[in-house]
Amino acid sequence: MGLNYAKRMDNIKASEIRELLKLTEKPEVISFAGGLPAPELFPVEEMKKISVEVLDEQGTKALQYGPTEGYKPLREQITKRMAKVGVDAKVENILVISGSQQGLDFSGKIFVNPGDVVLCESPSYLGAINAFKAYEPKFIEVPTDEHGMVMEDLEEILKNNDNVKFVYVIPDFQNPSGRTWSEERRKRIVELANQYNIAIIEDNPYGELRYEGEFLPAIKHYDTEGRVIFLGTFSKIFCPGLRLGWVCAEEGVLNKYILAKQGSDLQASTISQMQVARFMEDYDIEAHIEKLRSVYKKRKDLMINTMKEEFPAEVKFTNPEGGLFTWVILPEHINARELAVKALEKNVAFVPGGSFFPNGGNENTFRLNYSNMSEEKIVEGIKRLGKAIKDMM
Amino acid sequence: MGLNYAKRMDNIKASEIRELLKLTEKPEVISFAGGLPAPELFPVEEMKKISVEVLDEQGTKALQYGPTEGYKPLREQITKRMAKVGVDAKVENILVISGSQQGLDFSGKIFVNPGDVVLCESPSYLGAINAFKAYEPKFIEVPTDEHGMVMEDLEEILKNNDNVKFVYVIPDFQNPSGRTWSEERRKRIVELANQYNIAIIEDNPYGELRYEGEFLPAIKHYDTEGRVIFLGTFSKIFCPGLRLGWVCAEEGVLNKYILAKQGSDLQASTISQMQVARFMEDYDIEAHIEKLRSVYKKRKDLMINTMKEEFPAEVKFTNPEGGLFTWVILPEHINARELAVKALEKNVAFVPGGSFFPNGGNENTFRLNYSNMSEEKIVEGIKRLGKAIKDMM
Repeated sequence: MGLNYAKRMDNIKASEIRELLKLTEKPEVISFAGGLPAPELFPVEEMKKISVEVLDEQGTKALQYGPTEGYKPLREQITKRMAKVGVDAKVENILVISGSQQGLDFSGKIFVNPGDVVLCESPSYLGAINAFKAYEPKFIEVPTDEHGMVMEDLEEILKNNDNVKFVYVIPDFQNPSGRTWSEERRKRIVELANQYNIAIIEDNPYGELRYEGEFLPAIKHYDTEGRVIFLGTFSKIFCPGLRLGWVCAEEGVLNKYILAKQGSDLQASTISQMQVARFMEDYDIEAHIEKLRSVYKKRKDLMINTMKEEFPAEVKFTNPEGGLFTWVILPEHINARELAVKALEKNVAFVPGGSFFPNGGNENTFRLNYSNMSEEKIVEGIKRLGKAIKDMM
Repeated sequence: MGLNYAKRMDNIKASEIRELLKLTEKPEVISFAGGLPAPELFPVEEMKKISVEVLDEQGTKALQYGPTEGYKPLREQITKRMAKVGVDAKVENILVISGSQQGLDFSGKIFVNPGDVVLCESPSYLGAINAFKAYEPKFIEVPTDEHGMVMEDLEEILKNNDNVKFVYVIPDFQNPSGRTWSEERRKRIVELANQYNIAIIEDNPYGELRYEGEFLPAIKHYDTEGRVIFLGTFSKIFCPGLRLGWVCAEEGVLNKYILAKQGSDLQASTISQMQVARFMEDYDIEAHIEKLRSVYKKRKDLMINTMKEEFPAEVKFTNPEGGLFTWVILPEHINARELAVKALEKNVAFVPGGSFFPNGGNENTFRLNYSNMSEEKIVEGIKRLGKAIKDMM
């Protein structure tokens, strides 16, 4: 006899990205699959210096249990990051978590009864979809265009569904589409959340990685009733291996996240929190982010320009103003999962787009990452991919 | 209008321990409340050396995303820890998690539908109770005596309840009672789990901290059908600030935990995993654990001996053979929550026992920790506590 698992486990499948990443570990594979930052830009020397300083000065504290809310000096530093995206937050509004992925799991846990409706952009981040699925929601995908989620469609859905708990959005350089919301829609979604009494989960891992166009404040900036829960992370502006992110929310709402954190894993790593706080106190993180921006912009431009040259004219793709991804739409008769197999034969990897739609379909789409490969590999990989596409036309 | 939370959030309350810990941060408080290891025994100098080496040799890998399952050399080291408790595990049986608390949350997530029955020792670890509550189980407490859970009572409960998903146990130096299961009961619980088709969640944070008596293998050692899920942690044998623990289970079962990990926070900290693996490769962790044992044993003996002198004869308590806690039973008319208030006036803190019973009651009990205070403070604190108890007799 096998063990009896909970019903929710029927919904939980392995993330296609993480399974793919395993296949792409071979050094000969040019991988546009993950959302990995460029490791050559990690501040390794600074981390060495900081690690020693933290242990020298506060070693026993760094290795001991700490408060669930997080290390206070790090929470203070995070309020400065929030100011950068136009949000006036206090320490009391910040909970440190183990990467922003954990904030997605907590959002499901805190808000979703089985059968409740969760709204998201179509397409949406598949890690979020997988996290929410554990709480057995019904997903309704809201149509998007080049300016983000279409507010008329959102309103129509809210009018016709009375058990919507929250709308999950990535307004800046969305994963997977690379699209950015207009200011008008950022304001409008808050009005609709107020009117229909729902929460907004604003996932913002890439907001500080803008390469062109004008800065726009986070949706949380426009929040009037404490309905916007902002998720941030150090994974893309510092490094992901430490697993540190944060929730920024009104105190009453944040308290639910703190309770979830307490039950889930007590607290984030004390020593890692102290290291990141120290980095931001002693070094110029703005200069570090500026360096990331300039490298990633070059890679992005190079990928887009090579795609223009190497992909057939019928293939459409976005030209993002920031972030890590471009989104490709193939002619309808080409299946991106089949393309992925052919591309892997040529040692090129990407993530087929179907997994980014919680209700399926759209198998003629895929996502490309440009942050993790060198310029040389980007050109070579896109050329091979172009050939693979042409073979299927 | 406030936000609508999920029904499960009605069950989730702040952990009394962690709230208490905040009050006890004042340096004048002698705290027997937390389950904190002795920070003066943390290997701070070794950690400094290791941190630099890991970053020097594999800096970009240490700061990058890694596999959900965990860092392979650490998983290999963990199989050696499993051998120490009598379990023959392979790397494929090990998932690295963010402290064993996360394994409790995952166990709830993986097994429990609302209304399913979870069995536990009476009393049981309150952090586990809180983690499971998020999944809305019905708790049935199984009576315990000085040899652990009473198997006749367990069998009776299994006979009369057909929706039991798992039994949660801490067989070594239990939190909070300090009690250890006999070998006979370790074997018997596996037979009962096989017969009634349930899982056993074996939580084993203190197994290697035995100060006296004879070594007994983990329950997982007797597992014949892959029903025992073993949770281990580096928090008590190394340091808790890194937040690293593990799940050891049969591959099919472990796969569910890997899926839960992927959705919850992708992976444990890459750099911390590399550091702990390195510590175990380069240093003698057995010698480190031996040092912990000798210090904790002295503190435990001193606390027990002082209690014998300072507590009224009507007060009963356990004399554990290992671990971090002793359990105190007051005369029935004395309420330990009231005693906690009086003790805090004398700057002594402990955790009242009521929270360790998922179905309430037993307010005449409390838990004392002896690992985190110096010998001087243990004597002084127990004297003050003895006075507070006498004042209420």
